[in-house]
Parts: sequence; structure tokens; C-alpha cells
Amino acid sequence: MSDDEKAIRAFVQNWFEASKSGDIDAIVALMEDDAVFMSPGAEPFGRDAFKAMAAQMKHMRLDMQSDILEIKVLGDWAFFRSRLQVGVTPPGGKTLRRAGQTLTLLRKGADGAWRLARDANMLV
Amino acid sequence: MSDDEKAIRAFVQNWFEASKSGDIDAIVALMEDDAVFMSPGAEPFGRDAFKAMAAQMKHMRLDMQSDILEIKVLGDWAFFRSRLQVGVTPPGGKTLRRAGQTLTLLRKGADGAWRLARDANMLV
Repeated sequence: MSDDEKAIRAFVQNWFEASKSGDIDAIVALMEDDAVFMSPGAEPFGRDAFKAMAAQMKHMRLDMQSDILEIKVLGDWAFFRSRLQVGVTPPGGKTLRRAGQTLTLLRKGADGAWRLARDANMLV
Repeated sequence: MSDDEKAIRAFVQNWFEASKSGDIDAIVALMEDDAVFMSPGAEPFGRDAFKAMAAQMKHMRLDMQSDILEIKVLGDWAFFRSRLQVGVTPPGGKTLRRAGQTLTLLRKGADGAWRLARDANMLV
């Protein structure tokens, strides 16, 4: 496994840890300023909308599991595909589970860190 | 607009024309051998499954419209995002319409032609 591939696997872990702990600043630090998120039946949205959604979900318990199916490094860009499972549990409520494919583009910054640039989420 | 960007816009037009005319060989010529297609609530599938699905749809009328929202060339790879609308009409039947975002990765071959490599389709 190349150093970039290891760094991208670490990126995915860091994203999950930040998401589970509700650390919005840590998640935002893992994305590009112009990050774009896409999902079924929705308009694409950017970093600010992501932050607003994450803030609304702050009191929910999140569990996330992914199988990374492919990582491909294209110079300072890379993409990975995964099968992702997400469970969201509101306080005292029932867990809502979703699963599906993802296709994510990452960009490597001048600091050598990989950050999310474009994300296609096909969870249902 | 760069030559690659023009070529990618032409690729999208060629894909639509081949799809509308049911020319499966022409569509297949526009994809990489290891192309992967992803969509909501489905397992990823490759070229052979695409061909089988296209063959089943041979007698349906297809109309497709897309707004290309972004094209980015990354050396011999590129990605584009679009808002896609697809209408499928079986013979004598009602048109089923779907719409949504797409994120598509293309690869440039040794012959200079761009071909579809990975496709995330978020149509609902």
C-alpha cells in the first residue's frame, strides 16, 4: 500500500471519528473550501450547508462503517469508492439505517494533507 | 474552453446520441473495460451488466438532458458533474421521468479519446 493510500485510509477514519464525536470543526478541516456534496434527490451543497446540517445532528448518535472498495491516486487528486453504512439515533429514539455506495474525490493540499473535494453519496 | 473540455462535452453528446438510438456497441466504445456504474440502492456494476440492461431497454424511447455543472481535467483523468434528466417510454406506455446529480470520472486513452471510467448516478 502506498503512503498516499495509507493517508487516504487514515482520512476516512478521521472523518468517521470526527463525525461520531460531533466535532464539526474537525470535519470541516477535512474538506476543501469548495467541497461539493451530492446525494439522491437533492441539490448539491457545499461546506456551509454541511456545517448547518451537522450542527442540527449534534445530539444524535452516529455509527458509520465502510468497506473501501477502491482507491486511486491521480497526482494531487485521488478518488475512492466505498460501501457505506450509517446509523443515526436521536436521543431516546429509534435508529435510522441507510446504506449504499459512495464515490469521493480528494485533493492533496500544499501541506501534504488529503481533503474531501467532491462527494457522491448513494445511500438509501 | 480547453480542447479537453470540448472533447468531454462532445463525449457527453456522443453518449446521449448512442443511448437514444439504442446503439449499444457505440455506448460500450465510450467506456473503459473496467468501468464501474453506481446508483442509489444498488450494487455497483460493470460493462457487461450495462450491456445487458441496455439490451433490455432497446425498444424503449429515451430522452436525456443534462446541464454540465463542472468539468475538471486532472492529466489523463477528468471528472464532470451534471444535473441529468432522463425519460424512459416503453412502447405504448407512459414516460417514467427521473432526475438528479451525476459525478463521472473519465480516462483519456493512448488514442487521445476520453472514456467513462466511474459513474455515480444519483437520479431518483
